[in-house]
Amino acid sequence: MSQIADRLAELGLELPPVAAPLAAYVPALVVDGLGYTSGQLPTVGGKLARAGKLGEGISIEDGQAMARTCILNGLAALAHVLGGDLDRIERVVKVTGFVASGSGFTDQPKVVNGASELLLSIFGDAGKHVRSAVGVAELPIGAPVEIEMVVQIRK
Amino acid sequence: MSQIADRLAELGLELPPVAAPLAAYVPALVVDGLGYTSGQLPTVGGKLARAGKLGEGISIEDGQAMARTCILNGLAALAHVLGGDLDRIERVVKVTGFVASGSGFTDQPKVVNGASELLLSIFGDAGKHVRSAVGVAELPIGAPVEIEMVVQIRK
Amino acid sequence: MSQIADRLAELGLELPPVAAPLAAYVPALVVDGLGYTSGQLPTVGGKLARAGKLGEGISIEDGQAMARTCILNGLAALAHVLGGDLDRIERVVKVTGFVASGSGFTDQPKVVNGASELLLSIFGDAGKHVRSAVGVAELPIGAPVEIEMVVQIRK
Repeated sequence: MSQIADRLAELGLELPPVAAPLAAYVPALVVDGLGYTSGQLPTVGGKLARAGKLGEGISIEDGQAMARTCILNGLAALAHVLGGDLDRIERVVKVTGFVASGSGFTDQPKVVNGASELLLSIFGDAGKHVRSAVGVAELPIGAPVEIEMVVQIRK
Repeated sequence: MSQIADRLAELGLELPPVAAPLAAYVPALVVDGLGYTSGQLPTVGGKLARAGKLGEGISIEDGQAMARTCILNGLAALAHVLGGDLDRIERVVKVTGFVASGSGFTDQPKVVNGASELLLSIFGDAGKHVRSAVGVAELPIGAPVEIEMVVQIRK
Repeated sequence: MSQIADRLAELGLELPPVAAPLAAYVPALVVDGLGYTSGQLPTVGGKLARAGKLGEGISIEDGQAMARTCILNGLAALAHVLGGDLDRIERVVKVTGFVASGSGFTDQPKVVNGASELLLSIFGDAGKHVRSAVGVAELPIGAPVEIEMVVQIRK
C-alpha cells in the first residue's frame, strides 16, 4: 500500500504525466540519497493556464494555485525516477520558489505558501522544508511561478 | 568551550533569536551531514530596518550591513537545529545572495561580500564557500537582500 | 589518458584559466562527494565580451554562446579543485541558469540550453542534469548570464 498515493487520493489530487523538459535536461534525478527536480512550471497538459506576473494581473490566489501545480509536476517527476513510489521520499528538504513579480510586489512568501502547505498536507511532518522565495523579472514561457525541490530518499 | 561562540563574542556579535518564518516552512534543517537554511532576510526583532532596492536608495554599505544581518539570522537558525552548538559546523559550503536591484545596479558581489567576509571572520578557512550573487526584481516584504546558506556538519 | 580532456579537444574546446572570484569566496569546492561551483560569469580573460540583457540587445544566440563560456569557466574551476582531472566527475547533477532579462523576454530555456547541450556533448549521458532557468533583473558587472553547477564526484 502506498501511503503517499493514498494521501494524494484523499486530498483529491492526481499526479499529472511528467512535464516534458523545455530543453536539454531531465525533469528529476536521484544522487546519493537526494532527489532533485528541475524548476517546475505550472503547466497542465504541457500548457500554462495563464502567463503573467504577480502584481500585474495575476492574483495571490492564482499564484498559490499555480505553486500547487508546480509541486504536483515536481512530484510526478520524482515519482518517475522512483519507480512510481513516492513512499521512497523520506522527507522534503528544500523548496526554491521563483515568482515573476511586477514592480512593488513583495508577497512572494504568500504565493510560495501554496507549495509549502500542499507539501505539508501530503507528507505531514516529513513535508517540512527550508525555503527561499524570491521575486524575479521574467520566467520561461511567461510563467508566473517556477519551483524546484530537493527531497531526501529512503535508503 | 565553544570556539565559534567565542569568536562571535570577540567580533562583538550576538546571535539574534531565530527569525520566525514568514510562512509554512522551517528556518533550517540538517540532512545527511549538510545543514540548510531558508532564505534569510535582514530583519532585526522581526522587522526590516529599511525596505528598498540597491541602486534605488539603498547604498552598497547599507546592503553589506544587511547581508551581515542575514548571515547572523542564518547562523541563529542553524544554531537552533544544532542544539546551540555552532562548533558542529565543519565548514561553510555555499552562499546564495539575492539582491533586490534597481535598473542598472550590477554591484551584487560587493553587497554579498558583507556576508562572505563575515563568514570568513567567524570561521576562518572553514568559512570559505562557493557563492552566487544575483540581482532580483523584488524580495519578500521589500527586503533589499535575501541570503541562504548550506553548511557541512561534523560527523 | 583523460577521457574528458580528450573529448574537450575533439570538440575544439580549451579550458580557460580559473576565473578569479569577484569577491571573498572560492570558485569551486568538493564536499561529501559533490562538487559545487560558484556562479560563473561569461568572462574571457577576466572580461565580459559584452554586457547587457536578453531581450534588450543581446540575442538568444549570443546568450547561448555566453552560457557555454560560463560552463567552460565552471569546468575550469572544478578541474582546479580536482587536481586537473575532470574524469573524476561521475555525472552532472544540477545547473542553475540566471539570465538577465529585459521586460517580456521569456526564452530563458533556449539561452541556458547553450550550457546544457555543451554538458551533454562533453559528458554524454553523464552530462544529463536537472535544471532551473530564471530571468533576473540584473547580474554582476552587467553579465547577461550567470550559471552555477553541482556535479557528483567519483569515489
